[in-house]
Amino acid sequence: MSQQVYQRVALIGLGLIASSMFWAIKRGGLVGEVTGYARSAETRDTARRIGLCDRVCDSAAEAVEGADLVVLCVPVGAMGPVMEQIRDALKPGATVSDVGSVKGHVIDVVAPLIPEGVHFVPAHPLAGTEHSGPESGFAELFDNRWSLLVPVEGSDPQAVARLRALWEGMGAHVDEMDADHHDLVLAVTSHAPHLIAYTMVGVADDLRRVTDSEVIKYSAAGFRDFTRIAASDPTMWRDVFLTNKEATLEILGRFTEELFALQRAIRTGDGDHLHDYFTRTRAIRRGIIEAGQDTAAPNFGRTSE
Amino acid sequence: MSQQVYQRVALIGLGLIASSMFWAIKRGGLVGEVTGYARSAETRDTARRIGLCDRVCDSAAEAVEGADLVVLCVPVGAMGPVMEQIRDALKPGATVSDVGSVKGHVIDVVAPLIPEGVHFVPAHPLAGTEHSGPESGFAELFDNRWSLLVPVEGSDPQAVARLRALWEGMGAHVDEMDADHHDLVLAVTSHAPHLIAYTMVGVADDLRRVTDSEVIKYSAAGFRDFTRIAASDPTMWRDVFLTNKEATLEILGRFTEELFALQRAIRTGDGDHLHDYFTRTRAIRRGIIEAGQDTAAPNFGRTSE
Repeated sequence: MSQQVYQRVALIGLGLIASSMFWAIKRGGLVGEVTGYARSAETRDTARRIGLCDRVCDSAAEAVEGADLVVLCVPVGAMGPVMEQIRDALKPGATVSDVGSVKGHVIDVVAPLIPEGVHFVPAHPLAGTEHSGPESGFAELFDNRWSLLVPVEGSDPQAVARLRALWEGMGAHVDEMDADHHDLVLAVTSHAPHLIAYTMVGVADDLRRVTDSEVIKYSAAGFRDFTRIAASDPTMWRDVFLTNKEATLEILGRFTEELFALQRAIRTGDGDHLHDYFTRTRAIRRGIIEAGQDTAAPNFGRTSE
Repeated sequence: MSQQVYQRVALIGLGLIASSMFWAIKRGGLVGEVTGYARSAETRDTARRIGLCDRVCDSAAEAVEGADLVVLCVPVGAMGPVMEQIRDALKPGATVSDVGSVKGHVIDVVAPLIPEGVHFVPAHPLAGTEHSGPESGFAELFDNRWSLLVPVEGSDPQAVARLRALWEGMGAHVDEMDADHHDLVLAVTSHAPHLIAYTMVGVADDLRRVTDSEVIKYSAAGFRDFTRIAASDPTMWRDVFLTNKEATLEILGRFTEELFALQRAIRTGDGDHLHDYFTRTRAIRRGIIEAGQDTAAPNFGRTSE
C-alpha cells in the first residue's frame, strides 16, 4: 500500500527520534536510501553495527549530498551549528526539516541559513520515550501519534505535502500549526510537565529525612510516573527550556498560582475546593483515552514484574 | 505452598484495594471466608453480581461479626464513622487493620475506638491504579509491591506477624515503620506528586488559548502521564490532603523553592544548572528499575494502539 516518498533522506543526529524514523521508513518502504550522521564516532559505530541507516557518513555534509530531504534530529541548541556545516552541500530543490520540540527558535536560527532554492518545512513529532541514543528507536514510535508541521512564510505547498506523506507513512497523524501556537501548546502538554517532574524528583533526591532507597522502594504510589519523565535526555531538555523560555515561564506562572490556591485549600481545610478540582481533572483523562492517545488498562497496562 | 492465615476476614469498603485484596486472598487460599460491606447499595449489588466476597452484608456490623481480621478500606475521612458502626460487633481477640494512605490521622481517630481485647495494626499497601470501585480490583495488584505495617504502641507481635503473613501471601513485600515517618515518606512518593499532577492537569484544562481538544490530542509529549495520576479517586485524595496536611505542605514548600530556582535558571539562561539538575534525576529512575518497582520498557511498555 505504501510507496516511495523520497529517493534519498539524510538523518542528521542519530538518537531516539532519528533511529525510530529509520525503522519506520524501512517498515513502510518509504525512501530509496537513508543516510545518517552523528557527531560522536561512538554513535556512528553503533549505528553501523546495528544497521541503523543504509549508509552512515563521517561528516554531515557528506550525508546530505544528493538528499531530497534532510531532517535535523539534534538538540534544539545544535540546529544552527549543524546548518552551518551542511548548507553548502544541500542539493537544489531539497527540503530541510527538523524534529525539534521548539519551533520559534529553530525557525529564527535555521531559516536565515537556508540557501536559495532549498525548502524549509519545520516539523515536530509528538512522541518519545524516556530512553535516548541510537539503540532506543523502534518502528512503532509514531504509530497513531501526532506530528505537527509548522510551515514558514513561503513554504512550498508541494514540499509540505511530501513531508506530510512521509510522516503519515511512518504511522503518524499530521496537523499544521503556526510556530507561536505550537510553542504554547507544547509548553502546556510537554515542557511545563517535564520541568515539574524534574523538580519533584530532584526534591525527593535531596531530602535528608527520607532516604533515596526509601524513595525508590516506595515509588509505586505515584512518584515513579514522574521519574519516567524526569529520565529524559538532559541536553535536549536544557535546550528546550532555554529556547521556549517565554511560553514555559508563562505556564509555570499559571501552575504556581493554581498550586498556591490548592495549598491554601489544604491549609484551611477546604475539602470542597479540593474535591471539585480533582473531579474536573478526570474528564481530561477520559478524553485522552477516547482519542486513542493512551491505554485505559490500569497502570498503563504495566504487567506486575 | 500458601496456607490459610485467617478463618474469617471482613473487608469494609469495596473499592480498588478491597476488591484486589479479595482476589489476591482467593488466589492464595489465604482465608476461610471473606465477608464484605459497602455503604452504597449499588456497590453491594455489583459485588454480589461479580462474586466479590464470599458473602456481602447489608451492614458493617454484620460483616465484622465473628471476623478474625477486619480491614477498613474506606477513605481516610470515613475511618472514624465506620469504627463507630462496628466497634460493638468486633469479636474479642480480633485484629482491626486499615489500608489508608495516611497513618497518623487514622491512628488518632481509630485507636481510641478500639475495644479492650481487640488488636489494632494499621497498614498501607503502596499499590494502586487510576481506577476505582468494586470492579477495578485484580489479584496481581500487590505482587512485588510494598505494604507498610505501622504498629501502634502495644500492638500484639503475634497480631502483627499474622497480618504480615496475609500481605506476603497476597504477593507484597512488608516493611514496618512508625506513623510520622510513613506520613513523610508518602508525602514525597505519593501525596505531593498527586497534588502536582492534579494542578498541572487543571491548569491545562483552564487555559483559554489552548483548547482541551489540543491538550488531549497532543498529550503524548509528557502530559498524559500526569493525567493518569490526576484521574485517581477525588474523595480519597481530598481526605489524604486534609489529613496529611503538615507533611504534604512541607514537601510542597520544598518543591516550590526548587521550582523557583529552576525558573530563575531558565530566565537567566543558566544552562549548566539545568543540565546538572536533569542529569542527577536519571539516577533515581535507574534505582527504581533495578528495584523492580517499574518496567524498563520504553513508555512503561505501552503498546502503540
